[in-house]
Amino acid sequence: MRMKRKPWADELYEQNQNFYKKFPYDIKGNWHNFFGNDKPIELEIGSGKGGFITQLAKIHPEKNFIALEINEMALAYLLRKQFELKLPNLFLIIGDAKEVDQYFEKQEINNIYLNFSDPWPKSRHEKRRLTSPGFLDRYQKILNKNGKLTFKTDNQSLFIYSIKTIANKSEAIIDKLTFDLHNSEFVKENVETEYEIKFSKKGAPIYMLEAHFKKGDKDE
Amino acid sequence: MRMKRKPWADELYEQNQNFYKKFPYDIKGNWHNFFGNDKPIELEIGSGKGGFITQLAKIHPEKNFIALEINEMALAYLLRKQFELKLPNLFLIIGDAKEVDQYFEKQEINNIYLNFSDPWPKSRHEKRRLTSPGFLDRYQKILNKNGKLTFKTDNQSLFIYSIKTIANKSEAIIDKLTFDLHNSEFVKENVETEYEIKFSKKGAPIYMLEAHFKKGDKDE
Repeated sequence: MRMKRKPWADELYEQNQNFYKKFPYDIKGNWHNFFGNDKPIELEIGSGKGGFITQLAKIHPEKNFIALEINEMALAYLLRKQFELKLPNLFLIIGDAKEVDQYFEKQEINNIYLNFSDPWPKSRHEKRRLTSPGFLDRYQKILNKNGKLTFKTDNQSLFIYSIKTIANKSEAIIDKLTFDLHNSEFVKENVETEYEIKFSKKGAPIYMLEAHFKKGDKDE
Repeated sequence: MRMKRKPWADELYEQNQNFYKKFPYDIKGNWHNFFGNDKPIELEIGSGKGGFITQLAKIHPEKNFIALEINEMALAYLLRKQFELKLPNLFLIIGDAKEVDQYFEKQEINNIYLNFSDPWPKSRHEKRRLTSPGFLDRYQKILNKNGKLTFKTDNQSLFIYSIKTIANKSEAIIDKLTFDLHNSEFVKENVETEYEIKFSKKGAPIYMLEAHFKKGDKDE
């Protein structure tokens, strides 16, 4: 999401430093303490304006939620929401998905959500896709043994690419898969993103898959 | 395919015993000798009336083809074709897909085709689906190190099921995948089945995937 930096955002960031952290290397391994409870921690990578994670945090007070976004202007919209809502179970990170294993300890996360990630269609940008093998390895590290990865997209090429990368990772197990989320049995537990609401009105299908990683002895 | 037994079929089977074999346990490990050459052997499981494998055998004289079908009446239509064509690189098997590793030796097959296999939609029939884990294990056994599995269907549920079983088999690698074969880059190498021609005229998509199995030391 390309956005122009707006002055209100700077002020918001300045005045609400308790709601977010930039590059939280120092909280790695310490997130439960940070939240002050033992509730499972769920992470959205690429939260954009945060409609999805905000809803989720409202519906699930029994869980902690972290929104990771590299675009500070997009995250400012989520910060504005959080400034109003002050959800105790939501925290924002300005950070780079590539560094996710530098923000979180092994098995610290219970769930990772990727929603309508940038498809990076050119093959020379393959490594930037959030479902490329390098990213999957990082997710596997930080997810705990009950952890799962939920991926939603409207981009068929990215979905097919993701099926293949996940399928071809021997420790990954695909548990759910649909080519039409909104007309599938999984729709009842679906929380829509801003983009999804707009996009699915056009009648095009939303693709979704959910996977987990088998844990080996080396991960214990 | 349920079909009434027809008298012409009995006569055809009687008079053309050189073109087919029922339960060829005794040829296991000996198929190259049987064909009298070292050409790669490709196998279609569930050939039906054989439009696909007949075309393939015509196009590819540099390969041997085997059509496996449990329904003798369906296979009779293919036998009738072969009686006319007398393709030297095509052989028919009346047999059970469950026994495929009793008809073929480890790594004897170069390619397996599953075309529009019965979806067996009820979960209690899962094991009958030709992409269920038990079948995949058998395919892995009989495929050689360059071998691949090509699967085509118009049944979305069966396709999703198959993606999952293949994805969740750690030795399996999905190399190609499309939700709309006829509008994909893979269409140029596609050979249509009778069913596919009829079905795709209605405009519904054909799903296709191609996979191979990593070979471990134990398979050498």
